[in-house]
Amino acid sequence: MNKNLINISELSKNDIDELIAFAEQFFDGDGGCKRENIFPDKTIANVFFEPSTRTKLSFEIAAKNLGCQTINFDIKNSSMKKGESVFETIDTVSLMGVDMFIIRSSEPILAELANMMPGVKFINAGEGTESHPTQTLTDFLTIKQTKDTLNNLKIVIVGDLDHSRVARSFLNGISNYEENEIVLTGHPDLCSNFINNDKYHYVENLDDALKDADIVMALRIQHERIQSSTEIDIDEYKALYQVNSERMELAKGDAILMHPGPVNMDIEVSESLYHSDKSVIRDQVSNGVAIRMAVLSRFLS
Amino acid sequence: MNKNLINISELSKNDIDELIAFAEQFFDGDGGCKRENIFPDKTIANVFFEPSTRTKLSFEIAAKNLGCQTINFDIKNSSMKKGESVFETIDTVSLMGVDMFIIRSSEPILAELANMMPGVKFINAGEGTESHPTQTLTDFLTIKQTKDTLNNLKIVIVGDLDHSRVARSFLNGISNYEENEIVLTGHPDLCSNFINNDKYHYVENLDDALKDADIVMALRIQHERIQSSTEIDIDEYKALYQVNSERMELAKGDAILMHPGPVNMDIEVSESLYHSDKSVIRDQVSNGVAIRMAVLSRFLS
Amino acid sequence: MNKNLINISELSKNDIDELIAFAEQFFDGDGGCKRENIFPDKTIANVFFEPSTRTKLSFEIAAKNLGCQTINFDIKNSSMKKGESVFETIDTVSLMGVDMFIIRSSEPILAELANMMPGVKFINAGEGTESHPTQTLTDFLTIKQTKDTLNNLKIVIVGDLDHSRVARSFLNGISNYEENEIVLTGHPDLCSNFINNDKYHYVENLDDALKDADIVMALRIQHERIQSSTEIDIDEYKALYQVNSERMELAKGDAILMHPGPVNMDIEVSESLYHSDKSVIRDQVSNGVAIRMAVLSRFLS
Repeated sequence: MNKNLINISELSKNDIDELIAFAEQFFDGDGGCKRENIFPDKTIANVFFEPSTRTKLSFEIAAKNLGCQTINFDIKNSSMKKGESVFETIDTVSLMGVDMFIIRSSEPILAELANMMPGVKFINAGEGTESHPTQTLTDFLTIKQTKDTLNNLKIVIVGDLDHSRVARSFLNGISNYEENEIVLTGHPDLCSNFINNDKYHYVENLDDALKDADIVMALRIQHERIQSSTEIDIDEYKALYQVNSERMELAKGDAILMHPGPVNMDIEVSESLYHSDKSVIRDQVSNGVAIRMAVLSRFLS
Repeated sequence: MNKNLINISELSKNDIDELIAFAEQFFDGDGGCKRENIFPDKTIANVFFEPSTRTKLSFEIAAKNLGCQTINFDIKNSSMKKGESVFETIDTVSLMGVDMFIIRSSEPILAELANMMPGVKFINAGEGTESHPTQTLTDFLTIKQTKDTLNNLKIVIVGDLDHSRVARSFLNGISNYEENEIVLTGHPDLCSNFINNDKYHYVENLDDALKDADIVMALRIQHERIQSSTEIDIDEYKALYQVNSERMELAKGDAILMHPGPVNMDIEVSESLYHSDKSVIRDQVSNGVAIRMAVLSRFLS
Repeated sequence: MNKNLINISELSKNDIDELIAFAEQFFDGDGGCKRENIFPDKTIANVFFEPSTRTKLSFEIAAKNLGCQTINFDIKNSSMKKGESVFETIDTVSLMGVDMFIIRSSEPILAELANMMPGVKFINAGEGTESHPTQTLTDFLTIKQTKDTLNNLKIVIVGDLDHSRVARSFLNGISNYEENEIVLTGHPDLCSNFINNDKYHYVENLDDALKDADIVMALRIQHERIQSSTEIDIDEYKALYQVNSERMELAKGDAILMHPGPVNMDIEVSESLYHSDKSVIRDQVSNGVAIRMAVLSRFLS
């Protein structure tokens, strides 16, 4: 394995399978993850250029569960105006004794940072609209838990695909597995990069898309990234694209609903479906900690 | 005991006495509290919807003294607009492996949260204008230290009663004890809920109220909560309601002055009285850590 | 030694030499510092009234390397309006069990705080325009590493001297050593306190100043402190006062370039010189952690 985890494509199918199996060993059998004092000499810095609650806390808790020291390093967006200053800031912090940086950024900066700092390890916690490898591993673990395989599945991804690094990273990673049918759907104004595109199978009608699905992955409408020129009527959106209990009946009887969170409740997913047995959204949160423990362990070793 | 501590009324007199006695065991004999590595496997999250320095740090230090992992989770007030979103945020964080939430909120949300999340423990760090149980336990410990009893005392509470959860929580808790005379006093515009009210003994004149008091508890004027229509003349306020050394002579010779902090110095309390032997305000701060260690220990066990 | 470290002048030459030698023992031989669990019972609070990334992180990492508990205590500038309120805030936090305060402040407050609180330890992390003792010790360690002595050196300090506590603290500390030639240089509008002043040897022309230098210490232009009436033309500044590889040739062959960071890259220092062998700027960062470990250890003991 590379010293860094920047893109899911850097992992072989074997790497992915091993990380998932490794993550499962961290569960404590009680819904949580074990505490182990494996890396008391390692310091990990969370450097988030975008706001994040879930991913940041998930990495912080994973690092603490492994006995690492953690540093939360808040950089205002302003210090990103010059590429050099980000490099120098990270380089300086690394010189103080930080072993690994967990970075979230709206701009793609990780590959360049990793290249400029060969002695420092970088883990991508969400970058641009393309890459979010630990979310993808979390999603794969969740599918594995319920379907016992990552092959031969019909997977429907619905929602704001244009702004979704979760979706792009998933599509990238799932290509390692076989015989899956991937169907993309969602409001055409939020899926413009996936319509009329040879690489993807886009279906405009959600009900058509859901038929016989094993996995339904709903995405968050990223209001903060949607340009004001794209006006989505919320009532129309809900009528056409909300995943609810009724629509979920179109999928297979044992189909599961996933969502990376946070959910715009009763918009992209109905509240009753969110709380139903079909939803594994809350399991994804717990699985995220286990996956990050596995990733940190492997890349610190 | 309940799994949560939301209101002082949930504790029996026996619970309160036990928590106070338990807290005293954490003192290191040198003005501070002992460090004990009792709960290395527990993670505690501080979730403060209102700004707080003292209570937040006090809980954080208490948790660290007990060997817990601590997470500071900052939520902007904006995320409280929908009750559901607070629930989902806390639920999500709990799924990452947080055992207990310490919550401060201007709105009463704890009972509902605790009800919705039966598997998670909640401790109230100040909620609305009604409830602040760990402050009340701290006040009781401070009284016990100096008076050796919580019975047969004349207790005068003076100041901004209308906005004070400290006062309401204290009044609630002290009703467990016997033969106390509780006198409320303060500027009428700041005590409107306590005047002409059968439940309370309000005296407008501070000097009259202070006569033969054992305990004088001054409250902070909460400028940030006072509506602009209520204009208090500061000079008049000080002339009529400042607790100073001269006025303190009206109380018993061994009377003590308490205040939950932070003090508006030389407004509600004179600086010379603050620094005098009669003031136990600084003891309340140290006692707060011991009480929170006792509360965390009992409710984590 | 004093219980506090507020000014470099409080340390004897012997104290300084011992702290430098002590700091060197913390290096792990691999570019970083050792982790030692020496002070698990000590709690250190970082109280920064000014923004700081490097110094704050450096102290936090040093404290954690020594096994201390650390508290980051953010005070907005607003709470400094009254001297008393800073005192009461720090006093209150100390009562919760904080053993040592690391303080950065734009106003000189440390001497008064230390005087008012004889039972609490204070370490200056940069105060006003005068004092920054741990930076000076870091600079001395860096010189010692490369020159093996703090005597008989020609040291040129160039840049925004007027606003530099780094420079004043260095000048103060270096007076303990012998036979050094100290030359100050920089744009006259940024050196007004050092021109026509009997105490200092100021030379307006940078090239003249650099001749045969052993040490070149460039300073950061502190734009945030420069009054708008002082307009510095950046192109002119670079032409006259940028330290670059060509100019560095005027110094001795083994001269080193220092800078406290962060560098205004390609303004006060050229990027190619920053990355050259002559630059020890990145070593200063690592040395800063070792020095702070030494200072914390000595003053906690």
